Amino acid sequence: MTPFKLTDELVNEIEQLIISQEDTKLNSLLEDVHYADVAEIINELNENEATYLIKLLDSDKTSDVLTELNEDVREAILGNMSSKEIAGELEELDTDDAADIIGELPQEIVQQVISEIEDREHAKDIVDLLRYDENSAGGLMAKELVKVHDSWNVLACVKEMREQAENVTRVHSIYVVNDDDILMGRLSLKDLLTAKNTSKIKDVYIPKVDSVNVNEKPEEVAKIMSKYDLEAIPVVDEIGRLVGRITIDDIVDVIREEADKDYQMAAGISQDVEADDSIWELTRARLPWLILGLFGGAGAAVIMGGFEEMFRQYTILFLFTPLIAAMAGNVGVQSSAIIVQGLANDDIKGSIGSRLVKEMLLALLNGVILAALLLLFTWVWKGDFLTALAISLSLIAVIVVAGFIGTFTPLFLHKRGIDPAIATGPFITTSNDIFGILIYFMIAKMVLGI
Amino acid sequence: MTPFKLTDELVNEIEQLIISQEDTKLNSLLEDVHYADVAEIINELNENEATYLIKLLDSDKTSDVLTELNEDVREAILGNMSSKEIAGELEELDTDDAADIIGELPQEIVQQVISEIEDREHAKDIVDLLRYDENSAGGLMAKELVKVHDSWNVLACVKEMREQAENVTRVHSIYVVNDDDILMGRLSLKDLLTAKNTSKIKDVYIPKVDSVNVNEKPEEVAKIMSKYDLEAIPVVDEIGRLVGRITIDDIVDVIREEADKDYQMAAGISQDVEADDSIWELTRARLPWLILGLFGGAGAAVIMGGFEEMFRQYTILFLFTPLIAAMAGNVGVQSSAIIVQGLANDDIKGSIGSRLVKEMLLALLNGVILAALLLLFTWVWKGDFLTALAISLSLIAVIVVAGFIGTFTPLFLHKRGIDPAIATGPFITTSNDIFGILIYFMIAKMVLGI
Repeated sequence: MTPFKLTDELVNEIEQLIISQEDTKLNSLLEDVHYADVAEIINELNENEATYLIKLLDSDKTSDVLTELNEDVREAILGNMSSKEIAGELEELDTDDAADIIGELPQEIVQQVISEIEDREHAKDIVDLLRYDENSAGGLMAKELVKVHDSWNVLACVKEMREQAENVTRVHSIYVVNDDDILMGRLSLKDLLTAKNTSKIKDVYIPKVDSVNVNEKPEEVAKIMSKYDLEAIPVVDEIGRLVGRITIDDIVDVIREEADKDYQMAAGISQDVEADDSIWELTRARLPWLILGLFGGAGAAVIMGGFEEMFRQYTILFLFTPLIAAMAGNVGVQSSAIIVQGLANDDIKGSIGSRLVKEMLLALLNGVILAALLLLFTWVWKGDFLTALAISLSLIAVIVVAGFIGTFTPLFLHKRGIDPAIATGPFITTSNDIFGILIYFMIAKMVLGI
Repeated sequence: MTPFKLTDELVNEIEQLIISQEDTKLNSLLEDVHYADVAEIINELNENEATYLIKLLDSDKTSDVLTELNEDVREAILGNMSSKEIAGELEELDTDDAADIIGELPQEIVQQVISEIEDREHAKDIVDLLRYDENSAGGLMAKELVKVHDSWNVLACVKEMREQAENVTRVHSIYVVNDDDILMGRLSLKDLLTAKNTSKIKDVYIPKVDSVNVNEKPEEVAKIMSKYDLEAIPVVDEIGRLVGRITIDDIVDVIREEADKDYQMAAGISQDVEADDSIWELTRARLPWLILGLFGGAGAAVIMGGFEEMFRQYTILFLFTPLIAAMAGNVGVQSSAIIVQGLANDDIKGSIGSRLVKEMLLALLNGVILAALLLLFTWVWKGDFLTALAISLSLIAVIVVAGFIGTFTPLFLHKRGIDPAIATGPFITTSNDIFGILIYFMIAKMVLGI
């Protein structure tokens, strides 16, 4: 496969063809391009060009294109389409994708769009999905699945299955329900291929099937599916009725988004933004953390102000405040990152106490090594052993406390049910800056006997 | 589904049963436990208990358990097994998992283990896989797949397929090859279910199939599979011959590892470590970045030393060095994180120049807002407008430069083919600390006319 490459030339060519309205050429140029790639092209076009292209291309392709577009581009295009046209696109989509798109439409046209969907079963399924929280298994699942009753025989099952399979892009498992629609188990395609036509489903199905509750968090569903290597998982309601199915491709998106979110939080970016977002959006995501940092820095300045007299005498101590603050920040971020990641991957076992002891031993080991280096440097540079010793001993204390705060904070937040990822990045760096500087001056003062 | 929960009670119970050698109870207790959960239990046992359990349980279960264990636990258990026993486990595994385990065995027993595998076809496939780089599509793929020749008819194909499917856990697609084994296209199970028995494969197959080259990087494979929502992708060699297949569950692992790695790098952790690793392993991963930070701090101290005279007169400037350093670090980390993530997700389009201009405008906007706050604070606190102005103006300059460095560095590294993720975290904080402090003093000096 030659991978598709989005080039300026290609975008220009398409823009030219749109301007000169050469529909046949456009159609044949894009015919063999995957819908995900068409979406990448359209993301680069202006609103009118984008709308033109969506209206031109086949709706069984453009429906998939719509699901892959950037949210703002999709919003703009849908704003230029009639309710009937939008309904036509939704007709082609799986219920989960259709529900996601409806969820983004202005409230006043939702009713209209749904009433224009010709396939009433499809419309019903979409409406069912709308009532689930976006941030739950119900919000992820699709209604498309293949299910059979345990009272049927294999022949009836195959017949019914072929019919249902028409509407299901990928058949992973055939789910078996009883007459109350309660999920009982599953059949694999392989089993079905090898079973006798007259066998009862009751006698051949596998009475064990992983499933998730409709209220389960997406991250939990992701953990279950990736731990058990599942490609699809049925979703059941509170009394065990089969209500939908989640496939691994949606879970891959959840994992990516989750990872992106944690990464951004660690870097002090509080909303989901991308490099191509507007300066205003980027500022809104970044400024709050910077203001936090500013407050932290102002706090540090006030603390240092309290030691001003000492500094006139021991100016050298001043010179190392950025070093102390930086080390406190770095150690804090390292410790918290390991804990946050361990919590995300369910790797953290054992008590908080033993975890803290381990982290402080680790910090002590690192601290001693670093302090030895710093002692040597400062002694050689300034020739004053006692001051060098005071600075180095402070560094050890600061690193141990920074390790403690970095470990304790995410564990504490997690216990309280707060996402520990906020504890990495600016939050930990700022608090460690302040604590670090305070500890530094207090210990230095003690050692120097001021 | 009641999710499995690993508890101390369960581990204790199992340890007791192992000590009293109650094999029947152990077997029935673990019979219905998923292999991924059994692996979690065994990770908590000591070497002898773990080996006992692996030897006790059915090998079709323990082979899967082995693939899920922590690497050091698996190594210890395999060290207690004979070549014949190891070969017995490999016999039950898919070729990719078997090859991964063989790759971890000591060189001197590999030959012996392979010769003990009874299924010679399986052994041959495993040996084929051993020659691929772990960090490539070849290193990820399995040999298990269903392929048919384009010259066959549907009936022959179904017969052959049933036979092949015996060895394939999940059939996603049926790959179509010509007589030279060149990948031509695919058949979906659905198509096969609805095609006539006498049709030629040549006439019913889909002549378009995504594939990846055997030398492709795992991250690229992950991007392709998640972009195109694929659950499996065939792997071809340099001349297009079908050599293997990669499934989405392996890709989920790649995505998770990739995200973990970037996150750790941003936090200044240079190797793949987990919270439960030894203090020594954790130190090796963390100390190098801390030493870098120490050098940075020492550099900052030397720079500040050059301004020592100025400080005696304007001590207040000193008080804000931690604030300046922290802001430079935070802005740098934010900017670099957005670029690193954009590069990872292929979101970065356009020239480096326009990217830098945008980032500097953004930094300017943030800088002016933050400087206004700082001006107010310092003026009220110290009552000296000129000094407050000097500090605030410096802050703007520092933030703009920090944004520039944070944006430029990862873009530059990426152009040079170096993983830009190393540019986030300690690397950027440290260099921004130094530049920040230097700029701060120079500008403050200018404004105050010292």
